[in-house]
Amino acid sequence: MANPQPARLIDQLRERLGPKGVVTDGDALAPWLSDWRGRYHGTSPAIVAPADTEETAVAMAMAAAAGVPLVPQGGNTSMVGGATPPADGSALILSTRRMNRLRALDAAAGTVIAEAGVILSDLHDAAASAGWRFPLSLAAKGSATIGGLISTNAGGTQVLRFGTMRALVAGLEAVLPDGSVYHGLSALKKDNRGYDLRHLLIGAEGTLGIVTAATLTLVPAAADRAVAWAGVPDPQTALDLLRRLESETGDAIESFEILPADSLAAVLRHIPGTRAPLAGEHGWHVLIEVVGKAAGGARPLIEPSLVRAIEAGLIEDAVIATSEAQAEAFWKLRESISEAERASGPAVQHDISVPVAAMPRFMVEAAAAAERAFPGTHASAFGHLGDGNVHFHVRAGEGAPPDWVARNGAAISDFVYDLVDAAGGSLSAEHGIGQMKRKAFGRLTEPSRIAALRAIKSALDPHGLLNPGKLLP
Amino acid sequence: MANPQPARLIDQLRERLGPKGVVTDGDALAPWLSDWRGRYHGTSPAIVAPADTEETAVAMAMAAAAGVPLVPQGGNTSMVGGATPPADGSALILSTRRMNRLRALDAAAGTVIAEAGVILSDLHDAAASAGWRFPLSLAAKGSATIGGLISTNAGGTQVLRFGTMRALVAGLEAVLPDGSVYHGLSALKKDNRGYDLRHLLIGAEGTLGIVTAATLTLVPAAADRAVAWAGVPDPQTALDLLRRLESETGDAIESFEILPADSLAAVLRHIPGTRAPLAGEHGWHVLIEVVGKAAGGARPLIEPSLVRAIEAGLIEDAVIATSEAQAEAFWKLRESISEAERASGPAVQHDISVPVAAMPRFMVEAAAAAERAFPGTHASAFGHLGDGNVHFHVRAGEGAPPDWVARNGAAISDFVYDLVDAAGGSLSAEHGIGQMKRKAFGRLTEPSRIAALRAIKSALDPHGLLNPGKLLP
Repeated sequence: MANPQPARLIDQLRERLGPKGVVTDGDALAPWLSDWRGRYHGTSPAIVAPADTEETAVAMAMAAAAGVPLVPQGGNTSMVGGATPPADGSALILSTRRMNRLRALDAAAGTVIAEAGVILSDLHDAAASAGWRFPLSLAAKGSATIGGLISTNAGGTQVLRFGTMRALVAGLEAVLPDGSVYHGLSALKKDNRGYDLRHLLIGAEGTLGIVTAATLTLVPAAADRAVAWAGVPDPQTALDLLRRLESETGDAIESFEILPADSLAAVLRHIPGTRAPLAGEHGWHVLIEVVGKAAGGARPLIEPSLVRAIEAGLIEDAVIATSEAQAEAFWKLRESISEAERASGPAVQHDISVPVAAMPRFMVEAAAAAERAFPGTHASAFGHLGDGNVHFHVRAGEGAPPDWVARNGAAISDFVYDLVDAAGGSLSAEHGIGQMKRKAFGRLTEPSRIAALRAIKSALDPHGLLNPGKLLP
Repeated sequence: MANPQPARLIDQLRERLGPKGVVTDGDALAPWLSDWRGRYHGTSPAIVAPADTEETAVAMAMAAAAGVPLVPQGGNTSMVGGATPPADGSALILSTRRMNRLRALDAAAGTVIAEAGVILSDLHDAAASAGWRFPLSLAAKGSATIGGLISTNAGGTQVLRFGTMRALVAGLEAVLPDGSVYHGLSALKKDNRGYDLRHLLIGAEGTLGIVTAATLTLVPAAADRAVAWAGVPDPQTALDLLRRLESETGDAIESFEILPADSLAAVLRHIPGTRAPLAGEHGWHVLIEVVGKAAGGARPLIEPSLVRAIEAGLIEDAVIATSEAQAEAFWKLRESISEAERASGPAVQHDISVPVAAMPRFMVEAAAAAERAFPGTHASAFGHLGDGNVHFHVRAGEGAPPDWVARNGAAISDFVYDLVDAAGGSLSAEHGIGQMKRKAFGRLTEPSRIAALRAIKSALDPHGLLNPGKLLP
């Protein structure tokens, strides 16, 4: 293998890909060298921006020949520093932004072939124009790209019914570290020809290949939605309620979010214009969204079930939004929790999962354990109960110093991750490992499993050319 | 690495696993040395039958130390010689048959942890006893085991709604070639911690690890079913009908099988006691099964849709079975096609898939092309139209000699597989590669993809200890 020669490689790439294909201007580079939350900073002499799959394969082969690593990057919205280049400037960024075409939308089959650089909200619009929808959404939808969503197996607010990105990728095309192209866009429902490279590349965080396009599954457009808010005594009752609603509505429940009373109180205190949906006090709250197939079909789908759940003692009180504005107001309460908590003071946040059935107990017991272990803190969990995935936050007590997170964050996170591990859970529910969780991942994972992951990495990328310093401990 | 020493290894294994753990008696060995259809024959000095995961790990480690390969075997029902040991007696069979416990059935979550040796029909019974069902079934259900079904990503008659085995495996436990145990039974709905070993092991045909247990997804028990038979003009209309029924019944369609007129005629001619469901002649027939959630709920779900489809010209004529006996009679027509064709004379059979939308045209055009290329033959396709998976049979003409398949089979299969490949399809829809399709798989697959598969195999099993001679070309 040659010594890395970035300067010469950049010249070669510019000659082959043209001026649009290579960016070296400092101002143009700057936004892509740090993650969007400003936690990780890298440097790089150039962004390579191929126009299509063939140019991506050429760029990969040239980088391999020069021994220069590439850092695949889409919308640069990683939560774990997964798309930030190394600090030493040894790698080039491989941006998928120019590969942003929808190659085909099959309105009969309900599939779309999207290139890696397509932005999620653009895909939403294109699907809607064709009478379908792409049922995965998240806060960064205006920037996040299909390639990044696949490489991180992204989740979001509709996982309950439709699954994570993995469940929606019916076919995949990618450039492998040797510069070859994996042609897997044929969306075969049955195909047993050897090891499944598609599933290996999904969630690999760009360390095994560069996703260039995917065949994605669409679902029928939603004709109508109903959004309800209910007070429940505890997380276990909330989960019982979810199971009952799923059964009675024929799996029409698309969102089921749980919030503790203190999270709602923080929102009401800090976010202007918010008000409690229910008149009384409740220990826990759930936000429920159900989708109907015809106009006006959603409310009748959920209302009788809610009434029966009240009669059965599962729900203390409930209300269904009577307008789209009220529905949005309910969702704002849920989506403002992080902002309200920031206004309340410093907090250490964790995006974790445990088996769904174990989550109600985990939420209660882990919060109590964290408060015992770190006196003066307030711990609580909220989020996607039905996915077994919650945001577990440990907040500083009154008068905490500004550097409270810096001084206590690592110890608190280790404590929380140990509890997650003991419950058979995951320290990365949907954000991946990136740079942020490599150490904790290594600490909590059996050496034999890490060895298997390393062996796979070495097999497909023996020279470490793709996204160095990410994922593997 | 030591020279292979099977005799000494067998002694070591017997000492460690006890007399039940090692079988060397010739009569006891014999049934497991050939595949059930008698096409593949191997030999082996012993079957190793560990009692649990720990003993499996010990056996794997001891085999690795001795340099002796293992051939994982469940019910020995492979269609492609995937569980038959090599002819030279160099490998031991690793039978999962003693690991046949259901470790836990979670009636609230609808999941079950089944060991690899659990027989499919036993799992069906256990799920039914708990008010659930395991929605994957196939002809070999009385012998096929969970471990084998996972390792071949099995399909069957209910894939349309619930997917192949891959979609039903929520967690996995396996012994890797180094003797370590992959602990992945925690059925997390969201978990992004590195490359997905579960999906890598599913469909790996026992070449990367020995599946020892799995967490499987159950679905609610079926309260009622309705089985309909319809005459349609062509496969494209049949697919249009399926899409319409799926939309109108809320995805309650569980089976949708297509048969050409000549297949039905062969059944009526050769299978005693069969009769045509419809009075008139139709070019193509479809068998439809819909499941209702309440007793008596299935027929009302499908009947109005069938009436509307007749009015719309999609269906020429249709009938819904009015009794369970009639429903069984409809299914018997479908399930007797292979037997009827055997009675008609020799045929070369292919289990292939193409993208669903391309299947109607493929069925018609490929049959015509095969008949042109091999004059005197009759070609037709039937099966799982909604999965894009059909059985494509090329039958000899009248008076064909007994060795017709032996003389023409390879050329006919190459011709058919070339057509499948040109349509972006797969030469193995659900049976895997095993021994049977290695050569064709190698011929039709990009060298770069084969290289990636080989690299993964070498990474996890560098000494070729698991299921030698299978899957990889």
